Amino acid sequence: MTIKKYYVNSGEISGNSAKVFFEYNHMVNVIRQKAGDEVILINGDGYYYFSVIEKINKDSVDIVINKKVKDTSEPKIKITAYLGLLKSDHMDFAVQKLSELAVHKIIPFVSQNTVVKKETAKIERFKKIAIESAKQCGRSKILNVEPVAEFKEVLGSLNNFDAVIFAYEVENKLSVKTALKDLTGVKEIAFIIGSEGGFTETEAKEFKAFSNVKTVSLGKRILRAETAAINLAGIIMYELDG
Amino acid sequence: MTIKKYYVNSGEISGNSAKVFFEYNHMVNVIRQKAGDEVILINGDGYYYFSVIEKINKDSVDIVINKKVKDTSEPKIKITAYLGLLKSDHMDFAVQKLSELAVHKIIPFVSQNTVVKKETAKIERFKKIAIESAKQCGRSKILNVEPVAEFKEVLGSLNNFDAVIFAYEVENKLSVKTALKDLTGVKEIAFIIGSEGGFTETEAKEFKAFSNVKTVSLGKRILRAETAAINLAGIIMYELDG
Repeated sequence: MTIKKYYVNSGEISGNSAKVFFEYNHMVNVIRQKAGDEVILINGDGYYYFSVIEKINKDSVDIVINKKVKDTSEPKIKITAYLGLLKSDHMDFAVQKLSELAVHKIIPFVSQNTVVKKETAKIERFKKIAIESAKQCGRSKILNVEPVAEFKEVLGSLNNFDAVIFAYEVENKLSVKTALKDLTGVKEIAFIIGSEGGFTETEAKEFKAFSNVKTVSLGKRILRAETAAINLAGIIMYELDG
Repeated sequence: MTIKKYYVNSGEISGNSAKVFFEYNHMVNVIRQKAGDEVILINGDGYYYFSVIEKINKDSVDIVINKKVKDTSEPKIKITAYLGLLKSDHMDFAVQKLSELAVHKIIPFVSQNTVVKKETAKIERFKKIAIESAKQCGRSKILNVEPVAEFKEVLGSLNNFDAVIFAYEVENKLSVKTALKDLTGVKEIAFIIGSEGGFTETEAKEFKAFSNVKTVSLGKRILRAETAAINLAGIIMYELDG
């Protein structure tokens, strides 16, 4: 049998032992792990913690960590996805798939034409989906889901990246392929996909004013926002993760 | 206002006129189109039919077609996706996204480790999703959804393609990137993604026996089958659709 992976909160690991609360129910009642079973703990730090269950308590599991092994399957490139806030089920889907594709971080944001209200964003739910997805595909890192940012905050953070791919439906000069061919060796990259309402001309101009922003067309066909995000993440990984 | 697109069955168009039944309810009761309104008809043949509503009847709409314009946004490459039969909601999702990505055809299939029963596949439902998705993204072609094929039928049809990308988790020699770089100019391409159970060694050998099959690794991370399919379709389009 494959050794099961469980997610622990950072506070649950201390030195060579762990006390698991977060996944207690899954571990004990669903999978029915027993004392002596081998398990792998992940806490989002990029390591696998090879461990053995020592004792199952009433609401926690005591675990001995035998070795900590770096996960070498994580990409060398760090992708941050700025994603215009979408309806909850489309966000769920985007979070799950971007996590599978080993994206580093999602920053949902609102801009002038965003329809979904900032306050309604289920960030805690999205974080949970990111964890579930990491477990399912055995990722040792968890996709970070940030709180919903205002447009100004997005602008304020773009300088943190070597390059930013801005997908703008009005653009027809630069293809994403040409843009990416130019970015070999880049390590920290972001992309921006608007919500269904798209961007105003003023907003687009504000993005374009950054020297590290590359405004690209995603092609002749119209994709839903979440499909565009998944497609772009996959293509960036394909082209730039050596 | 943007001119609305409606899907018609081929039998509903005859010469320069059309009698619409299939989308009657949507056209008349949902969108509330009136006589004199301009509409665009699509029937999956790669053309847009620019038309005007002549008369709304009790259960049909009479339409005059003014001109037929070739849709130039369709890809030059034809992609066929052989997809191991998945649970219905995963199939729904794959069909919707592969349609957006302008894939030509999906052939669901069963092999030895496929869990989902062939008889339970909701092919009519998948066809409907393909049509809905085409309408939503304005595709003039409809993704073909074929009946579920047996493994032997899959084998029997692989020679129809210039190249076939076989995604096999056990493969670690050939990356999809190296494989695709070799296929510039290819027009008819297929890919094979297994269902969750994967393939037996014998099945994999049978695929590999074809000279046009390239067995590739999709990378170090595990993707769900439907994510792998979408990712691969996007990458093939990115790399090979000139």
